[in-house]
Amino acid sequence: MPLTPKQQDEVAAQRNEVRQTRRATVPALEEILYEPFRVLDHGFVRVVDYMGDDAAIVQAARVSYGRGTRRVSEDQGLVNYLMRHRHTTPFEMCEIKYHVKLPIFVARQWIRHRTANVNEYSARYSILDNEFYIPMPEHLAAQTTANRQGRGATIEGEAAKRVLELLRREAERAYAGYTDLLNEDTSGTPLDPARPGLARELARMNLSLNFYTQWYWKTDLHNLMHFLLLRTDPHAQYEIRAYAEVMLGILARWVPMAHGAFLEYRMNAATISAKGLAVIRRMIAGEPVDQPSSGLSPREWRELIALLRNP
Amino acid sequence: MPLTPKQQDEVAAQRNEVRQTRRATVPALEEILYEPFRVLDHGFVRVVDYMGDDAAIVQAARVSYGRGTRRVSEDQGLVNYLMRHRHTTPFEMCEIKYHVKLPIFVARQWIRHRTANVNEYSARYSILDNEFYIPMPEHLAAQTTANRQGRGATIEGEAAKRVLELLRREAERAYAGYTDLLNEDTSGTPLDPARPGLARELARMNLSLNFYTQWYWKTDLHNLMHFLLLRTDPHAQYEIRAYAEVMLGILARWVPMAHGAFLEYRMNAATISAKGLAVIRRMIAGEPVDQPSSGLSPREWRELIALLRNP
Amino acid sequence: MPLTPKQQDEVAAQRNEVRQTRRATVPALEEILYEPFRVLDHGFVRVVDYMGDDAAIVQAARVSYGRGTRRVSEDQGLVNYLMRHRHTTPFEMCEIKYHVKLPIFVARQWIRHRTANVNEYSARYSILDNEFYIPMPEHLAAQTTANRQGRGATIEGEAAKRVLELLRREAERAYAGYTDLLNEDTSGTPLDPARPGLARELARMNLSLNFYTQWYWKTDLHNLMHFLLLRTDPHAQYEIRAYAEVMLGILARWVPMAHGAFLEYRMNAATISAKGLAVIRRMIAGEPVDQPSSGLSPREWRELIALLRNP
Amino acid sequence: MPLTPKQQDEVAAQRNEVRQTRRATVPALEEILYEPFRVLDHGFVRVVDYMGDDAAIVQAARVSYGRGTRRVSEDQGLVNYLMRHRHTTPFEMCEIKYHVKLPIFVARQWIRHRTANVNEYSARYSILDNEFYIPMPEHLAAQTTANRQGRGATIEGEAAKRVLELLRREAERAYAGYTDLLNEDTSGTPLDPARPGLARELARMNLSLNFYTQWYWKTDLHNLMHFLLLRTDPHAQYEIRAYAEVMLGILARWVPMAHGAFLEYRMNAATISAKGLAVIRRMIAGEPVDQPSSGLSPREWRELIALLRNP
Repeated sequence: MPLTPKQQDEVAAQRNEVRQTRRATVPALEEILYEPFRVLDHGFVRVVDYMGDDAAIVQAARVSYGRGTRRVSEDQGLVNYLMRHRHTTPFEMCEIKYHVKLPIFVARQWIRHRTANVNEYSARYSILDNEFYIPMPEHLAAQTTANRQGRGATIEGEAAKRVLELLRREAERAYAGYTDLLNEDTSGTPLDPARPGLARELARMNLSLNFYTQWYWKTDLHNLMHFLLLRTDPHAQYEIRAYAEVMLGILARWVPMAHGAFLEYRMNAATISAKGLAVIRRMIAGEPVDQPSSGLSPREWRELIALLRNP
Repeated sequence: MPLTPKQQDEVAAQRNEVRQTRRATVPALEEILYEPFRVLDHGFVRVVDYMGDDAAIVQAARVSYGRGTRRVSEDQGLVNYLMRHRHTTPFEMCEIKYHVKLPIFVARQWIRHRTANVNEYSARYSILDNEFYIPMPEHLAAQTTANRQGRGATIEGEAAKRVLELLRREAERAYAGYTDLLNEDTSGTPLDPARPGLARELARMNLSLNFYTQWYWKTDLHNLMHFLLLRTDPHAQYEIRAYAEVMLGILARWVPMAHGAFLEYRMNAATISAKGLAVIRRMIAGEPVDQPSSGLSPREWRELIALLRNP
Repeated sequence: MPLTPKQQDEVAAQRNEVRQTRRATVPALEEILYEPFRVLDHGFVRVVDYMGDDAAIVQAARVSYGRGTRRVSEDQGLVNYLMRHRHTTPFEMCEIKYHVKLPIFVARQWIRHRTANVNEYSARYSILDNEFYIPMPEHLAAQTTANRQGRGATIEGEAAKRVLELLRREAERAYAGYTDLLNEDTSGTPLDPARPGLARELARMNLSLNFYTQWYWKTDLHNLMHFLLLRTDPHAQYEIRAYAEVMLGILARWVPMAHGAFLEYRMNAATISAKGLAVIRRMIAGEPVDQPSSGLSPREWRELIALLRNP
Repeated sequence: MPLTPKQQDEVAAQRNEVRQTRRATVPALEEILYEPFRVLDHGFVRVVDYMGDDAAIVQAARVSYGRGTRRVSEDQGLVNYLMRHRHTTPFEMCEIKYHVKLPIFVARQWIRHRTANVNEYSARYSILDNEFYIPMPEHLAAQTTANRQGRGATIEGEAAKRVLELLRREAERAYAGYTDLLNEDTSGTPLDPARPGLARELARMNLSLNFYTQWYWKTDLHNLMHFLLLRTDPHAQYEIRAYAEVMLGILARWVPMAHGAFLEYRMNAATISAKGLAVIRRMIAGEPVDQPSSGLSPREWRELIALLRNP
């Protein structure tokens, strides 16, 4: 479990306090509020606050005085319409805040999404814990040879063992070096009172990119869905995808209508280029089409064919 | 009252529903949730949702597992520290959503604040109501002669009467023209079944800038305070200031610690230029200083002297 | 022509000055730099500055030390790849700045695009000109009955004449009222020295939404293409579409590779929903499909069929 | 020198090409365009493009048709006025693009400034060079005991030597481990053809935070000045301050008027709290004031006194 007993107590205390509110609430989300969902070996995602629900989307689209909702089917229809026609502003009216613990190299990808608010644990003020990410053997991929990006076949057997041992050994050394530089343990006691400790903001540079950091991350529903679209994509690095998939599950609890529309009109939809549409029209008309006559590049052709076959 | 009885019922219905939540709540804000605060002659501001409280600022600054708050004095000290040192990200962790009814010319100033989410009532889909802003006589100012911007002395007597009559008469004509172009009343019934009505998106161009529009507007606490700083300023146009002042009052209910720090370190603080600081140092040393020897322009000198006298 | 002779001279003077630079330049864009392109009856768009070219996209994608470009076909291939896979950050490396004159109701739609920099002509400091938008008869549309938004059939004959006369008469009255309130002409001379003029920030509220304003508007290429995608759409209001179409033409001069990729993978592409893809797969397999068996709503079905027929 | 001979040639080739433009140019900035300014041991900043000059600020503030500038003193006066009154939008009309090479832990601080465009060298696609940051002995600071943040006294002698040796040894090991995991050298040749190389996106996690990365970073002048204000501050970590100081020097070349106003009204100015202003008023009146009677906290009192003494 990635939380210490003290942290678990703090979470439990927060979960136990129940208050009255006039605001919209989402019972399915309240149920898991503050609960950490484990991701990777030491990471987690937990929702620490939220604003709005499916009805808030409808309400904003209608600029209404009351809840603004009508029949369920009408509300779902409106949410679908907004999603299909990229009327994004009503989705911006819902907001969610997470506490996330994640390896630094994942944090560096994540932070590229700029339309969000972030407070990261400061390694200038504080000492980082001795926690680093080591992949599960099934996620140890070789560099792909097909293209320059991403992963190829899984590394197995001795080669895998070698990689895992190296990663673990080096991370342990990195932390030992960090502690040596700081010259203090996590309680602040000097290890060797005879020499000064290096400033925390400098000592951290000895840590490797698989060490865990954590942050509060807050965003609106529109930008969250954009994040999830990019980060649940098969081309996204597995480690960030692991977070995105947990967050997609939470989305279904929070705003089931928006989640449904998101799956239908974004995640499981496809954008077809002008030439791709022409190919489809010819195919439906029963014309034979092959890559050279399609006007598509070989790669685009392969992707289109895969899409049209995919059940 | 700017709400119709039907709208008042919708607001009351929303206020009457109370739910359970594990989230942080702010009783003083819950008390006024959904209630419209009247601004100008037909406008209002009402809070329709919020996320977070003073403790959420502290919690984010500490990236804590639980509430993260300690003693009240420590928490206020931390909030003050964050405000003084412009550590703005913890304030971004609180969010608020308003429903605002406001004249179009005020909306045009307001929208310049880009770091916010907006859903405006659509005059492409819907018909605007016959409501327009007419200033109170005490806000009828002449163009100032001192500088090119802003207002000078109040216009009174016959001249004021003339202005108010012109504004009212012309706004009424504008709405009559709008209705004539639409060829339908607000219930959608054609006025003259023999001729077509102009598209709503075109007919609206006949309305003047004092007609009311409305929107949902959502922002985070940091950006809200920036908005309030600029829009409660004496140089801001009175009409938008009237909204900002109501919102500043609501801020005190929502996050009293942040509100106190905001007054002390922003609103009632002053930024003194490098040359201005040199003048102050000389004054404290008992040296005589006048404008020519100060290095300040006459205008900067006047402003500095006013600031140093201002009790 | 929407420019005064003095303004035309200023533009010509700017066009005549030629300087040396080490920066990337785009001769086809330099050719029209500062030149106003007329839009609607009194509006215009003109490019007043730009940064970067197609090569800058390639250069940023490669984080290169030099120009970073290779063969034309390789560069176009990379630009296409970036566009298809929504790698948007390299497109953000190009920037463009326009001077635009546009009716206020168009400005109100335009400003919703928040990721841009804007400086608008101030009607608090200055007096607006007596210029307002009157549609061409062919753009006078009735409210559509098919859906609640947008335009239906064109209004013709007497009904059209009536609309145009009303719009023109009322705009002229609005300006006369504005001048009366200001009690000064554009040269600043009081009309009636015996009475005070109303502050400009107040007097403007008598103007209607078809009066022209102007601004400097600056954005990056990625956000520009997003703007153009939404605003050249047939569902966009004609008046803003007129601006977007002119800007799309300028895009082709500035960054022909990005423009080509934009047409192919965005403007003339289509996003097909998950259910829509299933329908296409069945159609290609030769299966009969109709709306009830498609799982699509009647509206989605109509749109899909139209897309698949559209040559 | 942080550039390879090949990179130096690419830079030189870019510098040698001169073109004609109708755009505003800044000769003092053209002079250093593309030239890397060395920062830290292997880093650099170089300007790769820019848009606008001091006149562009004035032009946007006046929404002018031509250059919009008048006499130098009038233009500087307007720029000062805009800076003093926080009219920030005209400054947003200038844009600059840098190529920066910097340690990863510096990149992580820098990226918190979200209002910018970034393209970072991808360690998913490419192999990072064996370059890491080792502080100069004079920047080896102990953790301060005065507060929890930042640096205290410099570490010297044996203790310093120990730190530097540890940092260097561990970084070299980290790179050796990285190479071993990749199982390829920078030319792509396998080290041991008998085993697979780990995917680049995974292998990088073995590198420590002092390894260098690089990016293209583009921002507008307003956001640049905000970045410089925060990052040239004595409380900023030395390593990012080193970059900010070089960029501040470049600012003086690019927009000397804005630079002057920025020094006077921001960098060398001070924001005094409401209570601080009251203290100053009492001091000028010749009243004795001490910390208890000031209403300021001991820390605020110390800071105010330091500010008022500082020549």
